[in-house]
Amino acid sequence: MSRLSVNPLSEGLRLERRPEPSVLLIFGASGDLVARKLVPALYSLSQQNLLPARWALLGTSRTDWDDDRFRAEMKAALEKFGDLQGSDGALVDEFLKSLFYIRSDTEDAQSMGDLKSRLEEVEKLCLDRPNRLFYLSTPPSVFATIAEQLKEHGIARSDGFTRVIVEKPFGTDLQSMRELNRRLLAVFDEEQIYRIDHYLGKETVQNILVMRFANAIYEPLWNRHYIDHVQITAAESIGVGKRGGYYDRVGALRDMIQNHLFQVFSLMAMEPPVSLQAGAIRDEKTKVVRAVRPVAVEEIDSLALRAQYTSGSIEGGPVPGYREEERVDPDSSTETYAAVKLRVDSWRWAGVPFYLRSAKRLPRRASEVVVHFKPAPHALFGADGSNRDTNRLILRIQPDEGVTVKFRAKLPGQDLRLRGVNMDFDYGASFGRKSADAYQRLLLDAMLGDPTLFARGDLVEASWELLTPILESWQERGAKGLAYYEAGTWGPAEADRWLAPEGRAWRRP
Amino acid sequence: MSRLSVNPLSEGLRLERRPEPSVLLIFGASGDLVARKLVPALYSLSQQNLLPARWALLGTSRTDWDDDRFRAEMKAALEKFGDLQGSDGALVDEFLKSLFYIRSDTEDAQSMGDLKSRLEEVEKLCLDRPNRLFYLSTPPSVFATIAEQLKEHGIARSDGFTRVIVEKPFGTDLQSMRELNRRLLAVFDEEQIYRIDHYLGKETVQNILVMRFANAIYEPLWNRHYIDHVQITAAESIGVGKRGGYYDRVGALRDMIQNHLFQVFSLMAMEPPVSLQAGAIRDEKTKVVRAVRPVAVEEIDSLALRAQYTSGSIEGGPVPGYREEERVDPDSSTETYAAVKLRVDSWRWAGVPFYLRSAKRLPRRASEVVVHFKPAPHALFGADGSNRDTNRLILRIQPDEGVTVKFRAKLPGQDLRLRGVNMDFDYGASFGRKSADAYQRLLLDAMLGDPTLFARGDLVEASWELLTPILESWQERGAKGLAYYEAGTWGPAEADRWLAPEGRAWRRP
Repeated sequence: MSRLSVNPLSEGLRLERRPEPSVLLIFGASGDLVARKLVPALYSLSQQNLLPARWALLGTSRTDWDDDRFRAEMKAALEKFGDLQGSDGALVDEFLKSLFYIRSDTEDAQSMGDLKSRLEEVEKLCLDRPNRLFYLSTPPSVFATIAEQLKEHGIARSDGFTRVIVEKPFGTDLQSMRELNRRLLAVFDEEQIYRIDHYLGKETVQNILVMRFANAIYEPLWNRHYIDHVQITAAESIGVGKRGGYYDRVGALRDMIQNHLFQVFSLMAMEPPVSLQAGAIRDEKTKVVRAVRPVAVEEIDSLALRAQYTSGSIEGGPVPGYREEERVDPDSSTETYAAVKLRVDSWRWAGVPFYLRSAKRLPRRASEVVVHFKPAPHALFGADGSNRDTNRLILRIQPDEGVTVKFRAKLPGQDLRLRGVNMDFDYGASFGRKSADAYQRLLLDAMLGDPTLFARGDLVEASWELLTPILESWQERGAKGLAYYEAGTWGPAEADRWLAPEGRAWRRP
Repeated sequence: MSRLSVNPLSEGLRLERRPEPSVLLIFGASGDLVARKLVPALYSLSQQNLLPARWALLGTSRTDWDDDRFRAEMKAALEKFGDLQGSDGALVDEFLKSLFYIRSDTEDAQSMGDLKSRLEEVEKLCLDRPNRLFYLSTPPSVFATIAEQLKEHGIARSDGFTRVIVEKPFGTDLQSMRELNRRLLAVFDEEQIYRIDHYLGKETVQNILVMRFANAIYEPLWNRHYIDHVQITAAESIGVGKRGGYYDRVGALRDMIQNHLFQVFSLMAMEPPVSLQAGAIRDEKTKVVRAVRPVAVEEIDSLALRAQYTSGSIEGGPVPGYREEERVDPDSSTETYAAVKLRVDSWRWAGVPFYLRSAKRLPRRASEVVVHFKPAPHALFGADGSNRDTNRLILRIQPDEGVTVKFRAKLPGQDLRLRGVNMDFDYGASFGRKSADAYQRLLLDAMLGDPTLFARGDLVEASWELLTPILESWQERGAKGLAYYEAGTWGPAEADRWLAPEGRAWRRP
């Protein structure tokens, strides 16, 4: 992962990116995400010399820790979740010296004053001027409150830069998203707000733009003349685990589709941006989400489908049904499987549906995008085969990252028989190294002030506009119309029946 | 290789192909090709139950063998060159019972009469009616004479079918080809003449049409809008070996380009045929060869290049120069490296050159077709990289049969760096079996009366029309203008300089 291992012959576009000195203030610092993802990502950045030369992390939450306790917890976290290859204890200890902690309570003015003093103290330790990056790793219900408290106590402005990273979900529907945005924008400008979506930090997702626009051979095919439809799938084999209480209020459509899969959709479907500037790319992404035809109430069931898993088995072991999960309402009608059909009204995409689907408790974890091409216009090699084995381009987002093109070739032998075959590109085999965790990339970009890979408010709003009628209809009808699927299967029979009339079928990743 | 191993789900177009009973009469039966290729191919066909139920091979040549000697020689040949996997001696002996031999001399009327009697005798052994397939595996100088003798002795017509397979070369220039054709057509109809070109029997060459027309994703790119140029290469590491006497009169342009590479060119460049009928495919192939702009005398050096190898080393061992080879004129100006640039005047290909190149004593044996695509029209990811690493589609004909697409992907890491990567399809890995030798396919097709994979006279004539001015100019100038390259290198520096002004470069296979 060392920068020195980069092929010197590759062209570099942003060769040297080292952020200005800053302090990262994390709210919710005693939480799971910080231990599992953020601190391991920061440690990896430090080992690659990508963190600012002078830098500190100040953690805060209601938990009654101090610096030493925080460092001890983070040391344990690094040992469990970090990439310590090639590191000795001394490197970890050196890193931990940049970590600080103070307990705080946003409802207690005294406590917020203490937080401010401690922040300024840490800043003096290491900075010329106060550059501040806030990370709200808390329940979304307190995002706005924290922002308002930061403003009230004079922390939200500084002589340097001030940016705030907000974890998803960005609202739970159109109204709550707008309310959250309104309150955040009363404290920060849109340019200061970094809505993190870790899918955008994945190498394979970033590669969508490179595939499309650094190559001459895909874009000519990338339209209604050649593409029949596109499937974007995020399949998980896990259930809700300990997140039952949270998940039961959210469901698959909000948890995965509204954010991650809409981002992937926008990268697949957008027009070429005029440049690689964040604004240019995000303008095009928002444009294509706005080009999706709104959902009328009477067509909801033909455009969206929901289901819930019942007990079953995964990898040979029995697993409970969703309603038996911990902290899930035994009468819950929350969907753990959701699929939506997006119709893009544009010259490029008219008549080419995009299907977005996500579910828990499927047989395998796999995220992928599948471009299904139309059959060849003239079935020279026999009509019977023309609709089967059509060409597909598969972008494998995770795991097993890579690209596959399916095409038909002649089966060796005396007869002229055709068979679908695969042409493969594999990230691991080609680059000889694992892709970095998405949070590394995104934390670094936020420090650098590059918002390209963050969700802009207008796109988020456009996606909620599209999905809110569906969510309202589902909520209103409760379990009526909810389908069921056995855990460990590829979803409900209704999902297949939903696609079949169009002559299409779900691909099994 | 058993037919039973074919995937029953694949569509079959010519599912059952078993030829009618026939006798195969081979002239030049004591020669190298019969022992190395034809009899091993026939044995493999017999083991797959693809030969006619009743079938015999009658060999003839000036060599004074009888049935027993011929069978003994062919048994030895099978042991050396045949695929005897899974065969025991009894199967081989059973096969050899279908082989017969008679000495003959086309200049001796008595001898030709004996040949006729023997043929009729063999036919009575195994046939209802006389279906005759002649194979002229002799020096080309006697092709016409044999045909005329067959006619004179009443062998060239029978109550069943009569077909004749002619080995290349089909003439040595336009005039000799026309003369040969004229004499053959005085005996046989064009439909009876099967001009064998073993490149057309290769799986990878047959797959060109399947790639292009059974898939929807290649044809939209297959034109001047997206393709910059195409390179068709047949590289050999061997020298002329024992064929010096023959080769020195022929050279690389006649030996490889006029036949094999023109066939590959026509498959790559042809318009879609209206059907898979032999006539429909061969019409389109001829059309595109006729669409190649003729070569004016003053442009020969900008459209064709020749060179000869000097001594050097291959795989670590020293090898002699061409002029030191056995039975080669020490002052020879015969080219062992030839390259031509074809300009196709059509809506599809205007401005897209096809470069055909073949040579001996290159570092490696490799035949391939490389489609070089144009760069992306807008260099979004930086101008410096736009002309390097352009997309390429590589059809690997032999060895290492397969397809590769080169495209640019994001190098994993914090920076946005691109690198050319490969997407691969490999015949061996995908189909789990070796491709059959081309002669198996072609012998079977001739027995079945399917001329699709044989060269039709009009295409051969069109290719000679194009190349004859070049050959005449080279002959006239002798060694003047001939370039040289060290054996074991990728050809002369002149070849690179020849392409460079167009901003193009030869790919090293």
